[in-house]
Amino acid sequence: MTTVKHMKWWGWGVEGVAFHHEDKPDFAPFVQKVVDLDVNIPPVGAMDLAELSVPAARIPGDLVAELTEVVGADHVASDDLDRIVHTYGKSLRDLVRLRAKDIPRIPDVVVYPGDEAEVQQIVDKAVAADAVIIPFGGGSNIAGSLEAPPEETRPVISLDMGRMNKVLDIDEESGLARIQAGALGPDIEEQLGRRGWTLGHFPDSFTHSTLGGWIATRSSGMQSDKYGDIADITRGLHAVLPGKVLVLRPLPSTSTGPSVREMILGSEGRLGVITEATVNVHRIPTERLILGYLFPSWEAGIAAMQEISTSDAHPTVTRISDSYETAFSFATRKKSSGISKLVNETVMKVLQKRGWNLDDICLSFIGYEGGRADVSRQKAMVKDVVGKHGGIVAGKGPGQLYDQKKFDTPYIRDFLLDRHAVGDVSETAAPWSKLIPLYNAVRAAANDAFDKIGVKGWIMCHMSHSYHSGACLYFTFAYKHGEDEVLAQYDIVKGAIQQAFVDNGGTLSHHHGVGVEHAPWMEQDISAAGVHFIDGLFSAVDPGQNFNPGKVVVK
Amino acid sequence: MTTVKHMKWWGWGVEGVAFHHEDKPDFAPFVQKVVDLDVNIPPVGAMDLAELSVPAARIPGDLVAELTEVVGADHVASDDLDRIVHTYGKSLRDLVRLRAKDIPRIPDVVVYPGDEAEVQQIVDKAVAADAVIIPFGGGSNIAGSLEAPPEETRPVISLDMGRMNKVLDIDEESGLARIQAGALGPDIEEQLGRRGWTLGHFPDSFTHSTLGGWIATRSSGMQSDKYGDIADITRGLHAVLPGKVLVLRPLPSTSTGPSVREMILGSEGRLGVITEATVNVHRIPTERLILGYLFPSWEAGIAAMQEISTSDAHPTVTRISDSYETAFSFATRKKSSGISKLVNETVMKVLQKRGWNLDDICLSFIGYEGGRADVSRQKAMVKDVVGKHGGIVAGKGPGQLYDQKKFDTPYIRDFLLDRHAVGDVSETAAPWSKLIPLYNAVRAAANDAFDKIGVKGWIMCHMSHSYHSGACLYFTFAYKHGEDEVLAQYDIVKGAIQQAFVDNGGTLSHHHGVGVEHAPWMEQDISAAGVHFIDGLFSAVDPGQNFNPGKVVVK
Repeated sequence: MTTVKHMKWWGWGVEGVAFHHEDKPDFAPFVQKVVDLDVNIPPVGAMDLAELSVPAARIPGDLVAELTEVVGADHVASDDLDRIVHTYGKSLRDLVRLRAKDIPRIPDVVVYPGDEAEVQQIVDKAVAADAVIIPFGGGSNIAGSLEAPPEETRPVISLDMGRMNKVLDIDEESGLARIQAGALGPDIEEQLGRRGWTLGHFPDSFTHSTLGGWIATRSSGMQSDKYGDIADITRGLHAVLPGKVLVLRPLPSTSTGPSVREMILGSEGRLGVITEATVNVHRIPTERLILGYLFPSWEAGIAAMQEISTSDAHPTVTRISDSYETAFSFATRKKSSGISKLVNETVMKVLQKRGWNLDDICLSFIGYEGGRADVSRQKAMVKDVVGKHGGIVAGKGPGQLYDQKKFDTPYIRDFLLDRHAVGDVSETAAPWSKLIPLYNAVRAAANDAFDKIGVKGWIMCHMSHSYHSGACLYFTFAYKHGEDEVLAQYDIVKGAIQQAFVDNGGTLSHHHGVGVEHAPWMEQDISAAGVHFIDGLFSAVDPGQNFNPGKVVVK
Repeated sequence: MTTVKHMKWWGWGVEGVAFHHEDKPDFAPFVQKVVDLDVNIPPVGAMDLAELSVPAARIPGDLVAELTEVVGADHVASDDLDRIVHTYGKSLRDLVRLRAKDIPRIPDVVVYPGDEAEVQQIVDKAVAADAVIIPFGGGSNIAGSLEAPPEETRPVISLDMGRMNKVLDIDEESGLARIQAGALGPDIEEQLGRRGWTLGHFPDSFTHSTLGGWIATRSSGMQSDKYGDIADITRGLHAVLPGKVLVLRPLPSTSTGPSVREMILGSEGRLGVITEATVNVHRIPTERLILGYLFPSWEAGIAAMQEISTSDAHPTVTRISDSYETAFSFATRKKSSGISKLVNETVMKVLQKRGWNLDDICLSFIGYEGGRADVSRQKAMVKDVVGKHGGIVAGKGPGQLYDQKKFDTPYIRDFLLDRHAVGDVSETAAPWSKLIPLYNAVRAAANDAFDKIGVKGWIMCHMSHSYHSGACLYFTFAYKHGEDEVLAQYDIVKGAIQQAFVDNGGTLSHHHGVGVEHAPWMEQDISAAGVHFIDGLFSAVDPGQNFNPGKVVVK
């Protein structure tokens, strides 16, 4: 059978890896305090696939035979595990539905093509049979971009791109690499790194997401301040459509009408199957450094980030947590760590003497890359700006710690669900002038929603990316859920946050895409005319709605 | 009548301004040598509008009355001059056709709206009457984006945006300005500059092109290395469609599906009327410097530009002329200028002693902006790279000269046409690894085309913009045209150059747009599927083909 590895069918990440709190002494009391949850209660037991009643496949045998002829029997799967793995992404809603054994429409077959020619044949045969094709990368999507519509009566094919995971070519003179769409983050960095190059794209989902998935959802990474969002990085691409391949050659820039490249970006499988892309790559920098900083308040920290964004420094990472997320970071520190050294009582006493309210402290990380001299120059420039806004340098310790644990956060959601609590995220972007009012409005909306559903809720935030004209705010929220109606409760909280985004000058999503979960806010974000543009494009390119129907815009 | 100023109806720029060679002693012998043209022959006489037989307007009086009611009698024009001014852009083909009195389909009426509400009313009334709307900015387009299809039988309305020329708002915290689409470059810089801001967008057409036009054609400017192309600069926008306004709020980044912003960019009027945009603006920098450099060869210069693009320097301008354009620059120097000082015999002798072949010298300009320290740092870094590739610093003189005369070049085309010669431009962009082969192929193709039409032709080039993965090559060509068949000859030369672009990994246009002139190469550039995407979008948004039909894609 296929050698493509998948995440746990019921949760985030690799089997055997999970979030543990036992080595983090402040975690349990913190969680008790903020959401009234005792994390030491017995967690729910492991899930058993056999308990799910998996519906029989609704696909003609002829079509399966045709698909098998294309890719070979080893690369077609219709067992329960494979079908369940490809049913959803990993949104909170997905995890809750799996736990509730709620799987109304699961793919009928999973196909693993080995190259673009096979994708072309699969697409042609599927469309000829009026089947639905859902391209599948790492399966990490958290916006509902991977599920078949519950009412779908046509055969549903999950097209898993996992075998197409190679860096095909590096054009060293141009700093461009041609990479297959199914390559996961680590595949890419390992293959590029061997030759001294990096893509520089590190979303939280890095270990479990693919180049094709990043493009299909307009991903952004932790170092996008320097390397750009995936929309900037992607210079050329291939996408398979019925009977033909869309070929966009790699170009640094062009003025050939409305950008077809920018139509595929964010298309979430609705405009064909992305098979490869040619992307900007960079020489691995001589020097790489992430420093921690502390600010006396959120407002001071955001003002500093804004000033840095218009300075002559060009940091790789600009990130600052609000006081709530800072408190959470402190609470998740291990017994001995950089952070614990940092935030020892001595430092805190010094800050108190300087007039800081310790409850308002905000932890920031700023990253630098380049030649040694340039990193020093930027660091000195940033230090001045930080000082001007009342902040202090906290050194390398917190930065290294952040760098090491940055991909582990998503595991906490399963830990919480095991203990009858919800933890989830929602992100936006807005102009600098709107960030603080938007932040306050989102907090108020979330707290109102917590009251409405009668829970003690928690919401925290960090600013994760800077642009010339604004930044991304990334919120995390949690609460102990009720016995029933877990999703009804969740929708109230999540909906309140999304509504506060669009009501306050923010976008409904900075880098998580739209899927079905964010689609209801599309008209409020890009106006009815904008939705009409996208819908018109989808209908023109895919009149039969064979490609991942129902995502991005709701008819 | 309207206070909106237009360019000469028959040529580029302002009445009374023209290219003169009398103060440039080397120009006449240079032109004689390279295209066998005696520039001292008597030029053709001034054109007389009365000699054109302007077709009567084909528009119902009711519709004109309705439009007049919307904007007022002062802002509707149907006199010959106004209609002729709005018939074409300023491409070589446009200038030749005007000189040949070839005006098969000119607009029936010109309307000058004062605000977005008026645009909405005009659009609604025009579409209700099944009229064609052609949005008109500065009229500087050189790709045939402004002409009505010759066979168009419906009423044609030229919608001149010239009255909508205000900076509406500056969000100083976010570095964003809301600007009306009809604002010309100088309007924008003057209104922003008063408050210490700059847009930093300076295309060659700057003095005669508008924000809306830049967006509609995906413009790029001389300082786009730093400020970005107009596609990067534009963060939000409004466009009027029948019965509604597309509103894209200003966002630093977003992941809301295929980018509608990037659909309007490059739409050339086919997706509605752009009425305003919110764009990134920057504080006017403390320091601004453009330095000249000399390289012993084109290959050495391009290699240096590539290395600078991946260095820790972030120049505002990176530009290098090939040896042919360098010779042209030297030939257009005035009696006493920075360049003349520079290229005096002493310098040349020194370079010869260093082993340079003086025929191969390439002149480069690199621009810097920022704080004083940062400009010094970048300058030093660039100097090292230049030296490594055998180049030398030529100082401030050439840079200042370039900066002063950068908007004057387009006047030469009329000067040449007056003397029975053609001069025109064509630009592309390609990855660094393809630039030199593409350059050689374009030169060969142009020279073959010159042979084919039996002329002594001249082609020269500069690299005008650097990106991480490639650059823009901007070609200028000239020859003495025949008595008849001026456009047939021209099409052979221009077509050969365009074909060489797409055959060698370049795009058909880096920043001039598509219009009707570049449309034949669209499939070769973005593939048949890409054209289908754009065409499908246009048909979905404008099923009646009321908005500037026939541009970008040819049905």
